[in-house]
Amino acid sequence: MPLMLTWVKDLQFVADDGAGHGMILESKHDGVPAGFAPMQLLLVAAAGCMAMDVVSILKKKRLPLRGFTVSLEGERAGEHPKRFTEMRFVYTAVGNIPKSDLDEAIRLSEEKYCSVSATIKNAPRMVIESRVVEG
Amino acid sequence: MPLMLTWVKDLQFVADDGAGHGMILESKHDGVPAGFAPMQLLLVAAAGCMAMDVVSILKKKRLPLRGFTVSLEGERAGEHPKRFTEMRFVYTAVGNIPKSDLDEAIRLSEEKYCSVSATIKNAPRMVIESRVVEG
Repeated sequence: MPLMLTWVKDLQFVADDGAGHGMILESKHDGVPAGFAPMQLLLVAAAGCMAMDVVSILKKKRLPLRGFTVSLEGERAGEHPKRFTEMRFVYTAVGNIPKSDLDEAIRLSEEKYCSVSATIKNAPRMVIESRVVEG
Repeated sequence: MPLMLTWVKDLQFVADDGAGHGMILESKHDGVPAGFAPMQLLLVAAAGCMAMDVVSILKKKRLPLRGFTVSLEGERAGEHPKRFTEMRFVYTAVGNIPKSDLDEAIRLSEEKYCSVSATIKNAPRMVIESRVVEG
């Protein structure tokens, strides 16, 4: 089932996954937006994908992982389209985990498993259709 | 302020934007996950960015936009890392909007303004740090 994005007002949208989950997206020049902005979602998508791989790999090795966080930020170009020139991720594993296992899991995710970073590294074809409905 | 991703359980994480908003991410092989998966977020990020540009451009032209939706889906490669080989977006504008204005706005977003698709087309440097905390 396709995802659906619906305009609410201003630069506020709701995303619907077709399985009962909704998410507010908003960009604002002033004040606090009502939800995540698209560029934040891009960071969350990349970090979430790698984090899921890393936790999954450490768990498969039966390592005693007690916590896991990722801190993430991006550096943007000054000129439009203000793309990310750099994405920075700090992965923190909590527990008696050898650093080498953590780094090996991160490497495996980056090179082999993470679908999001693989898509960012190798851009997909973008197919865009448009239509106008009177109403 | 950096975004933060925190592992909850299994392949479930919470993202925090540092401004009071949280979002559940989850991947599951069986059953309904508790939130969006990273690859879905990537689609939402790309569509949200373009949708905000398009609405913004149509509004600046003072066109009578009454509604706007995007339907989005991706085609994935069969092999790991199962990247998107194609992303498909259907933009629907509701109201008395000339189709040519809609298409011009989409083109401007794609070529000039959309930070997310510009990042996907021109991969940023990924800087990854890792650390282990006993606990």
